[in-house]
Amino acid sequence: MINDDFTVKMLGRCSVASPLKLSSISGDGVFNYITDEERVLYDNSLSNFLKCKETGEMPISFEKAGPREKLFFEPAKTKVAIVTCGGLCPGLNNVIRSLVMELNYRYKITRVIGIQYGYEGLISKYNHSFIDLTPKMVENISLMGGTILGSSRGNQDVPEMVDTLENNNINILFCIGGDGTLRGANDLSNEIAARGLKISVIGIPKTIDNDIGYIEKSFGFETAFSIARDIIRDAHNEAVGAYNGIALIKLMGRDSGFIAANATLSMQEVNYVIIPEMDFELHGGRGFLKELRKRLEERRHALIVVAEGAGQHLFESGDVTKDASGNVKHKDIGLFLKDKIAEEFEHKKFPYSLKYIDPSYIIRSAAANANDSKFCSLLAQNAVHGAMAGKTGCVVGYWNHAFTYLPIPIAVKERKKINLESELWWNVLETTGQPVTMKT
Amino acid sequence: MINDDFTVKMLGRCSVASPLKLSSISGDGVFNYITDEERVLYDNSLSNFLKCKETGEMPISFEKAGPREKLFFEPAKTKVAIVTCGGLCPGLNNVIRSLVMELNYRYKITRVIGIQYGYEGLISKYNHSFIDLTPKMVENISLMGGTILGSSRGNQDVPEMVDTLENNNINILFCIGGDGTLRGANDLSNEIAARGLKISVIGIPKTIDNDIGYIEKSFGFETAFSIARDIIRDAHNEAVGAYNGIALIKLMGRDSGFIAANATLSMQEVNYVIIPEMDFELHGGRGFLKELRKRLEERRHALIVVAEGAGQHLFESGDVTKDASGNVKHKDIGLFLKDKIAEEFEHKKFPYSLKYIDPSYIIRSAAANANDSKFCSLLAQNAVHGAMAGKTGCVVGYWNHAFTYLPIPIAVKERKKINLESELWWNVLETTGQPVTMKT
Amino acid sequence: MINDDFTVKMLGRCSVASPLKLSSISGDGVFNYITDEERVLYDNSLSNFLKCKETGEMPISFEKAGPREKLFFEPAKTKVAIVTCGGLCPGLNNVIRSLVMELNYRYKITRVIGIQYGYEGLISKYNHSFIDLTPKMVENISLMGGTILGSSRGNQDVPEMVDTLENNNINILFCIGGDGTLRGANDLSNEIAARGLKISVIGIPKTIDNDIGYIEKSFGFETAFSIARDIIRDAHNEAVGAYNGIALIKLMGRDSGFIAANATLSMQEVNYVIIPEMDFELHGGRGFLKELRKRLEERRHALIVVAEGAGQHLFESGDVTKDASGNVKHKDIGLFLKDKIAEEFEHKKFPYSLKYIDPSYIIRSAAANANDSKFCSLLAQNAVHGAMAGKTGCVVGYWNHAFTYLPIPIAVKERKKINLESELWWNVLETTGQPVTMKT
Amino acid sequence: MINDDFTVKMLGRCSVASPLKLSSISGDGVFNYITDEERVLYDNSLSNFLKCKETGEMPISFEKAGPREKLFFEPAKTKVAIVTCGGLCPGLNNVIRSLVMELNYRYKITRVIGIQYGYEGLISKYNHSFIDLTPKMVENISLMGGTILGSSRGNQDVPEMVDTLENNNINILFCIGGDGTLRGANDLSNEIAARGLKISVIGIPKTIDNDIGYIEKSFGFETAFSIARDIIRDAHNEAVGAYNGIALIKLMGRDSGFIAANATLSMQEVNYVIIPEMDFELHGGRGFLKELRKRLEERRHALIVVAEGAGQHLFESGDVTKDASGNVKHKDIGLFLKDKIAEEFEHKKFPYSLKYIDPSYIIRSAAANANDSKFCSLLAQNAVHGAMAGKTGCVVGYWNHAFTYLPIPIAVKERKKINLESELWWNVLETTGQPVTMKT
Repeated sequence: MINDDFTVKMLGRCSVASPLKLSSISGDGVFNYITDEERVLYDNSLSNFLKCKETGEMPISFEKAGPREKLFFEPAKTKVAIVTCGGLCPGLNNVIRSLVMELNYRYKITRVIGIQYGYEGLISKYNHSFIDLTPKMVENISLMGGTILGSSRGNQDVPEMVDTLENNNINILFCIGGDGTLRGANDLSNEIAARGLKISVIGIPKTIDNDIGYIEKSFGFETAFSIARDIIRDAHNEAVGAYNGIALIKLMGRDSGFIAANATLSMQEVNYVIIPEMDFELHGGRGFLKELRKRLEERRHALIVVAEGAGQHLFESGDVTKDASGNVKHKDIGLFLKDKIAEEFEHKKFPYSLKYIDPSYIIRSAAANANDSKFCSLLAQNAVHGAMAGKTGCVVGYWNHAFTYLPIPIAVKERKKINLESELWWNVLETTGQPVTMKT
Repeated sequence: MINDDFTVKMLGRCSVASPLKLSSISGDGVFNYITDEERVLYDNSLSNFLKCKETGEMPISFEKAGPREKLFFEPAKTKVAIVTCGGLCPGLNNVIRSLVMELNYRYKITRVIGIQYGYEGLISKYNHSFIDLTPKMVENISLMGGTILGSSRGNQDVPEMVDTLENNNINILFCIGGDGTLRGANDLSNEIAARGLKISVIGIPKTIDNDIGYIEKSFGFETAFSIARDIIRDAHNEAVGAYNGIALIKLMGRDSGFIAANATLSMQEVNYVIIPEMDFELHGGRGFLKELRKRLEERRHALIVVAEGAGQHLFESGDVTKDASGNVKHKDIGLFLKDKIAEEFEHKKFPYSLKYIDPSYIIRSAAANANDSKFCSLLAQNAVHGAMAGKTGCVVGYWNHAFTYLPIPIAVKERKKINLESELWWNVLETTGQPVTMKT
Repeated sequence: MINDDFTVKMLGRCSVASPLKLSSISGDGVFNYITDEERVLYDNSLSNFLKCKETGEMPISFEKAGPREKLFFEPAKTKVAIVTCGGLCPGLNNVIRSLVMELNYRYKITRVIGIQYGYEGLISKYNHSFIDLTPKMVENISLMGGTILGSSRGNQDVPEMVDTLENNNINILFCIGGDGTLRGANDLSNEIAARGLKISVIGIPKTIDNDIGYIEKSFGFETAFSIARDIIRDAHNEAVGAYNGIALIKLMGRDSGFIAANATLSMQEVNYVIIPEMDFELHGGRGFLKELRKRLEERRHALIVVAEGAGQHLFESGDVTKDASGNVKHKDIGLFLKDKIAEEFEHKKFPYSLKYIDPSYIIRSAAANANDSKFCSLLAQNAVHGAMAGKTGCVVGYWNHAFTYLPIPIAVKERKKINLESELWWNVLETTGQPVTMKT
Repeated sequence: MINDDFTVKMLGRCSVASPLKLSSISGDGVFNYITDEERVLYDNSLSNFLKCKETGEMPISFEKAGPREKLFFEPAKTKVAIVTCGGLCPGLNNVIRSLVMELNYRYKITRVIGIQYGYEGLISKYNHSFIDLTPKMVENISLMGGTILGSSRGNQDVPEMVDTLENNNINILFCIGGDGTLRGANDLSNEIAARGLKISVIGIPKTIDNDIGYIEKSFGFETAFSIARDIIRDAHNEAVGAYNGIALIKLMGRDSGFIAANATLSMQEVNYVIIPEMDFELHGGRGFLKELRKRLEERRHALIVVAEGAGQHLFESGDVTKDASGNVKHKDIGLFLKDKIAEEFEHKKFPYSLKYIDPSYIIRSAAANANDSKFCSLLAQNAVHGAMAGKTGCVVGYWNHAFTYLPIPIAVKERKKINLESELWWNVLETTGQPVTMKT
């Protein structure tokens, strides 16, 4: 009685024997195939167990990812395409590399093509060619950031994209991208189903902000906050190096403050973390500017981390604009705060020195660190297992240390955010010592 | 009906109000105190849920760590000691720093002392003095590896150690160390109980090998395999840089191959991973040396990672020797393999070039990376919460993304090892392409 | 017959025996004291030798730095002050550390104070206190960027500063800073001389841009272009990751392009380097924008490095403004170029994607790399040798692998710039492949 | 009247116009060709100038490297080979990359082959194939350590190697290697001359130890001591982390202690530096072991750096053995010292804890840092300029900030060593505080 929303779609019955030499019994020293029935609990508290037991309710759970005994696609006849969309994120090349390696060496699929510059590569007018992806070609790419396929923002015409897949005899499409990309992937899979085609569309969620629902962590996120940590460490030198020195660092985080919060917890010199989930005032007795001045008077320096999507309520309302990916285009809170601090302190003739740091592209373009590299590899391998078993319209997720398959609509339903009542945010407050609220 | 083995001991009733300003209700925007009843499931599979529901069995679960509303110790009267034991591990200074910071700034405890050179520091004949630990003193130590307290191996006389604690009016002792240290901590807590004293002894598990039971990950482990990854990346250059070039890297892993396995998964150039959990032969038709030669003949280079405790069955039996910590002293498989390869290939006049790399102390002495730094901080804070609430004879663990309290006897019952039938090991086999078994 | 301009001023006759146990004869295995007569040639070409020989002209040469046999100051009675001025630069803490260590351990001078926040610290109205600098306090600071003394821009009232030195019985003042700071140091030494005081003022040139005359390299410069190299490496990923992708990196270089040029030579993916020494046009048939578009049409990506002081001729003329240090405040060429590219390509409906990266404070606040650390140490030690020997109004320089003493007026006479006809610039042109000129 | 020893051999008259578009006049904004007459002084002291002027002696000078106006080889007819010999050294791939790039893009030479596994690749019995080297193939190799060509130790039959060059119509051979390799290159150039062939043989000196005469620095050396610096920084944690803790680090340095000395100067925690140039005793009243114990008793920890070739006088004499490159095979002083310390302290029942670290291959296999990358590039470009101008039997050197051409016999005449009376060694003594001598 699994909740329908959490049930992954299949292209059809699986009848092809997997070329992987795994087992179905325990104790023979060989890893077992994962069955479609293996599932991972969403809520792993004892109290939820007791509640469900009492009410008879079925707890929410996710399908466990992994190699299936029977495949939908016959390896010898399968052709695969890979596309990367949206902004750069550490680990893209690792994912591409591992998809190619897993397809080639484990499933013996040699026809793998790369689609260039995101979904544009599936639209003829852009005239981007395909790239043949071989193990030789991808061997060393994981040491470099970026994506060898190029990327672009925004969705494209769904029927034409499906035409392209069809005309090129693509059987499996891996879409690596954020929630816009995943919505596009879902549209593709619906159009494919409507046409009665048998093409698997698998999403590999890429969000440097780590803000996709029901997914514990996304690739590149740890690398992102790790690099941010080093930048914060040094920015602290700028703050203490001047009288009333302020270092203001804008980090990524369009709708959520996960990078800001985690970077802060890994380098505990930050005095203020300002995130999109948080309401605050600039002016007034308990406002941020008053608070900042008080700190400077006491300690003579301050280190501020602000997530790019924070403080949108401070801007004059107006028409909402969106970028090519459909993301609401946020006003730049970093430069805004810089100006407001200057305005306030110059007006009050309060001496200060502010250094503004925006490391966004430095972080996005970096290579994945060790833990992310491992994660990307396993994520990609599980994407291949799912695709070969005929799953479609789903993403590969990660929950409580297990890889999962999750229908795209569930994954993109709403962005994951920091709960201000959670342990994570409390830890940030404890670490920074900043007031619980900065408004009257 | 929680299984007794998993129930944490308490010094007594908690009646002191916590100085932390938290909440007990949801929805007020303030983090809630954690109650002793909140627990985390050990097995988070749906099938275990269904089984337990059917059989009425209570699933195994761990007490959730976190700040309690009522404390056992009155902050103003509390004196705390910290000791670090065993070999270096990245993150020791981070743990020390966060203990001091949390005690000082959150619980307003200013009397914190550091015991020097491990348990030796509690024994008078060694004559090591105590160190007063202040926020100022520990402020920057997390940027450095090692431990500012110094360390030593081995346990010491338990009654005398308790005498020292008693004579110095210590109320809480944090023991940071491996399973030998934790066993010692348990002995201390038993002796304390036998004397009717009220001293909390809290273990903070330190194992660079990540081999403590019921604990998902230990601090320093990620840093360790991350540094190993970089070393493997470059060692690959040594292997391909010579005709029949072999790079042989010995990594840590006394009884388990977690570092070797994870480093391999994060840098996929390794051809053979040899771990303690694995049986293998050197000679014979399917033995390692034959296999290695075959690879060299085909590819002209090979990259081998061996965990320090692997292949003990290959040594002549004899009296088992132990180090000061009580760990069985393993023979050095790294140099042994190096010699055996030389012996074999020189005998057969097979030209080769072998480079041997033992980065052990380079890894152990490094500073924690960003993710480990965050982890150490939260681990230490939860150790403080537990101690203040009068818990004793327990360690702070981590399971399914939650910090836990775990009785020491459970944690040290048996060392965590890689199951050769698990997904982790299968991933290693897939990545390296090494044979499932290397014995006849 | 040494040219007067290159002769270093002395406070008086040196009659105190140095506490360093060095030698005056060769062959005894002990390093020899350096005499004031040892000098290093400015021009080390054979042709200059031949020319001078023929004409009888004395070649330009610099006094060699190093320990002198006789000192001007008696260590036991000497009190020393250190001040850091201007923007951050990697290595400041290394210099401070080595000054303190050399004074303490070699010359047995224990009274060393740090002046806070630059020259402000010598002016009473700012009310910044002095810091006692001990070996213990500075032991680990070289692992961190920034300056533990704090800094500020701008000169202060010279007579009052001399009053402060006099009132505090300071015998030696080390001024670490750029050319503004050094000019200030020269003014101090003149005022001191006018008052008949015996205070040595020694400048330690700090210019991340490496633009001080007659000095081969300044500390922090290598660290700066090394970090820039890594940022360029990753920025390349942003450029190739988009169709007509442009990565535009603004590096330091107010009046000279040394950082931009050296970073480019160490990471050869850059396509255009734009520096202050260079004249160029934006528009027109051979202008930069046309050139850029041509490249994008051919290669679909471009990587541009621009030094912050480049292209000032492109801005509307107006009143020149200066910062507190007296540096001409340059308009921001980085954002200007970004806007101009956008303007041009949007107007022409040429699709492109531009990522702008300004790593300035990330670089300035970093710790010194290994080679700079060594350099800072030796630089500081030579500053101490010079001061103890009564030299004043001079800086410690470096030329043809030897440390030198150089009168301040010579060092600040004009800023070192890249000669567009030099091998360095030619190497940049060869590496980037950019046109020799980008103007009609 | 240039000293013959310093005069570079030429294959013949140069009559081909260079395809580089340089200038011969100053002031036109274009870099000038370098003439064969431009030379760099060896001794750049003023006193040497005065002495030579007085005696009429011609000072020693080196031919300046750089692009010549007339070439010996016609680009369209030129075929080039590259070989790498000996142990790994950071920067090998950078040199290969820049040779290929310079030949292709500047001199329009497309026929460039790589010889595999050192000189073996020129001998038929080894059966190593040639590799075509294209810009595409070498584009990213500078980000990786090692050599894509592979390497081997030892010289091979000179006539057969020349046969191979001749049979394959090679016009230019670049030999990248240490002094053994360079001697081999000289033999090749002599044999070529004897046969009346016109093949240029250019050596690019590779010595991680930086021990080649008349050459200021060799590529990879800075990277080597920079990595060593980080290892020393962390090894210090091992030393202070134990009671009477000793960290013993063996660094490279077969006959000279440059790496040990420079690493020490860049990370000033080292207490003893032991190098090949230095005589010392283990036992006796002023011997190293007594000295070490004294320090431990006072400070409770010690950090020792030993160069691999140090202390050879301590070993029992016996037959000298050599490695394939002809280097005297040194006994392992690192493990020897470790054993002797253990022997002494265990005998005397002096408690201690020793950690032994040998990072040799970790350092050798690393990628070049930024400064070395730049250096490798310019070094390779100057090698190409020299070869195209028909120079042969020479190496590309570096002196007083200029690239030079130097006859091989001069370069390999004797290994550069640390003069114990020099400033460098004095700086080491000052930094470590170790006794000037450790013998009675």
